[in-house]
Amino acid sequence: MLIRTVFIFLLAISAPYAAFAQSFGAQEFTLSNGLQVVVIPNHRAPVVTSMLWIKVGRADEAPGVSGMAHYLEHLMFKGTQKMQPGEFSKTIKTLGGDDNAFTGQDYTAYFTSVSVDNLPKIMEMDADRLVNLNPPPEHFASEKQVVLEERRQRTDNDPRALFGEQLQSMVFINHPYGTPVIGWMNEIERYEWKDVKKFYDAWYAPNNAVLVVSGDITAEQLKPLAEKYYGTIPKKELPPRIRPLVPPAPAQSVLSLQSDAIHQSIYQKIYIAPSERMDKKDSLALQVLAEIMDGNATARFYKNVVIGQKKATSVDFNYNSSAYDYGTIGIGGTPAVGVSPEDLGKTLEDEITAIITGGVTDAEVKDAIQRLQDTAVFARDSVAGPAMIFGAALTTGSTVADVENWSTDIAKVTAADVKAAASKYLDNTKPWIRPAVTGHLLPAEIAPPEVSDVQR
Amino acid sequence: MLIRTVFIFLLAISAPYAAFAQSFGAQEFTLSNGLQVVVIPNHRAPVVTSMLWIKVGRADEAPGVSGMAHYLEHLMFKGTQKMQPGEFSKTIKTLGGDDNAFTGQDYTAYFTSVSVDNLPKIMEMDADRLVNLNPPPEHFASEKQVVLEERRQRTDNDPRALFGEQLQSMVFINHPYGTPVIGWMNEIERYEWKDVKKFYDAWYAPNNAVLVVSGDITAEQLKPLAEKYYGTIPKKELPPRIRPLVPPAPAQSVLSLQSDAIHQSIYQKIYIAPSERMDKKDSLALQVLAEIMDGNATARFYKNVVIGQKKATSVDFNYNSSAYDYGTIGIGGTPAVGVSPEDLGKTLEDEITAIITGGVTDAEVKDAIQRLQDTAVFARDSVAGPAMIFGAALTTGSTVADVENWSTDIAKVTAADVKAAASKYLDNTKPWIRPAVTGHLLPAEIAPPEVSDVQR
Repeated sequence: MLIRTVFIFLLAISAPYAAFAQSFGAQEFTLSNGLQVVVIPNHRAPVVTSMLWIKVGRADEAPGVSGMAHYLEHLMFKGTQKMQPGEFSKTIKTLGGDDNAFTGQDYTAYFTSVSVDNLPKIMEMDADRLVNLNPPPEHFASEKQVVLEERRQRTDNDPRALFGEQLQSMVFINHPYGTPVIGWMNEIERYEWKDVKKFYDAWYAPNNAVLVVSGDITAEQLKPLAEKYYGTIPKKELPPRIRPLVPPAPAQSVLSLQSDAIHQSIYQKIYIAPSERMDKKDSLALQVLAEIMDGNATARFYKNVVIGQKKATSVDFNYNSSAYDYGTIGIGGTPAVGVSPEDLGKTLEDEITAIITGGVTDAEVKDAIQRLQDTAVFARDSVAGPAMIFGAALTTGSTVADVENWSTDIAKVTAADVKAAASKYLDNTKPWIRPAVTGHLLPAEIAPPEVSDVQR
Repeated sequence: MLIRTVFIFLLAISAPYAAFAQSFGAQEFTLSNGLQVVVIPNHRAPVVTSMLWIKVGRADEAPGVSGMAHYLEHLMFKGTQKMQPGEFSKTIKTLGGDDNAFTGQDYTAYFTSVSVDNLPKIMEMDADRLVNLNPPPEHFASEKQVVLEERRQRTDNDPRALFGEQLQSMVFINHPYGTPVIGWMNEIERYEWKDVKKFYDAWYAPNNAVLVVSGDITAEQLKPLAEKYYGTIPKKELPPRIRPLVPPAPAQSVLSLQSDAIHQSIYQKIYIAPSERMDKKDSLALQVLAEIMDGNATARFYKNVVIGQKKATSVDFNYNSSAYDYGTIGIGGTPAVGVSPEDLGKTLEDEITAIITGGVTDAEVKDAIQRLQDTAVFARDSVAGPAMIFGAALTTGSTVADVENWSTDIAKVTAADVKAAASKYLDNTKPWIRPAVTGHLLPAEIAPPEVSDVQR
């Protein structure tokens, strides 16, 4: 199911989940076996999106079998003691619905959109595979081939993706986030069902899951269904979520790749930053900072670097706050003709230095908050969107209240908060934990930076 | 016990163990509980060195508690159900002996040198702590402080050591060898006795150990003692030694650090290479290559770069073959006055390119082999040396026969083998697994390389 993993990428490149959140009127209850249930009523059409989020992802895997959480996600469609391989998705299609799944560093999520009258059937099947997974052995090898092909298409055949993966691996030293969700090619080949089963048995449990149902239903209506289908599954004793620490280090690093397959240079720099779970106040300030730097065509990066100095054809400032552990801030861009990646890097850094030394204006902060709040209002329009927002938040350490109150919380961010956060996390002379990692992606015909040992 | 960990460093900077090895007349037997015993008779003086090597090290630790194997090594001197904290070492001293221990990525070793008549007492105490470790809780916190102080003194107060650690962490992406044996400072603080105990219970077992006794004793004399003291310890079901794979990657990386504490620039480059366990034939060829490049004052690096071109005041080419997993090749040096690290790097690379394209001469190979064999003869002179050699070999996948036959095996290496190995592992245009990682360590007053985003 190729399309499924596209969602990993959408999540990765999207603005922080919180940017979409605002008073959703979510209702919440917990079953006696520990399953947390969130209902987001939306009665415009008689449809629902039901998502089951498991609080386990790539980062929880044992060393040596990277990407196994994602492989398990694939196998979750390959049958149980009651269902044939493929029967789950086929049934949903017959009912006129859609289903899919995706894996992240901190969660694995399964979702189905159907008419509300078909919800009980969906829940029955979903609960079944939460506890009775039993794919026939002939699917182990074939599904491994599917994953390998997925990796080839998405990463190995794309020098930019390979480069991004390597950059990330050098940011997250000693930390699982340095390993891509799909896994390293040479480790995908080592998967064995016994390891997958052990992972499934350890982590897939009602007390390690969140059921999020969005659409034409209320908590009162959902509760008896949840009790009936999920309530009988016994809870488990869960392993701890181990997150090693990124160790402090003194030196700056630069990663360089020249490739025939690259036609335009790219400059990138990645800083480690706190996630919302690690530091909510700083995270909110960084969300505002990202909007000020790169929220629209009048944002600083675009206005000053693309329009003003004409150093780049595109620029990017992104902050990923949605993680159980560390978040990241990425800056980067495509240099204009005649501009080197180093030169663009210097220009972008000057913009950041201007914030660290001069701060931002109250007007910039006010505009940014308004735009972020507007985006949050739009997010309430869809059925599936809010389910995504709550699921990602609740599996990375935030609460329903955090999501509901986000719009009022973000409004409290001041210009001083933004300046302080920029100084704390983006100052090269006083790095937080360890210095950022810089990447230069270069077409083959352009000379590499003047460091003699950087060769093709 | 500060001095103990010095040995880790001696091992790390020493030539491959095999370079010291030659027909030692080793005798070998295995107890019914799986304890492997090697005796290297040497009757010049009535002394013995007894080493107990456990096949577990830093690389076998769970994520998040790096350096715990070394912390456990410290606690092994802190008492059992029968012995008081410190009693082990105190007893050895009373007997006129010496004792110590060290930890590596793949092993933990405990050794004692005493007069041969005191060997039974040593074995009794050594066997006791292999199975009955029981340090009083008040030592957990204090020993953690000892380890933290050890790390501060050896690494954190030395920019070169910190830099070396960071360089290593970027070479071994996704692999435990990227984490230093002593552990990351922020993870040392997290040790808990329950985790240490779990590690000890899982790995410390007779069937996961090698007893190496060198000196005034024979296998016939040792066997009843080994049976008496170690033979009664039950074997255990051992966990697998998990070694994740280093993933292939396309891009070259350069790590740069400017520091007030550095007074001379240093250039370093680290390649991943096979260990002897991974590829014995290639490993032997690389051992000869290292000797040709940097074996003595007429070796290529010194003769051409220091004496000839006067680009450096010192140069280094080292190959570490002694690992359960990947080995490394490091090249580097201290640039002469007026020479930049990049310039020295280019010069050293030219020397390597000369080998890849032009090979080495038969005379160079013959001389190198002779020098290596001579070193091996000297190694037989000491009592402790051979015990070190066998222990390191047997805990990283080699056999007694590998050590004994090393001198004849190395003699078979040809000039063609050396050229082929250089081409396979040192060619930047066709990197093996992934490109080497380069490091530039610079005094504060010298300008960094011309990459604008490399800042202090």
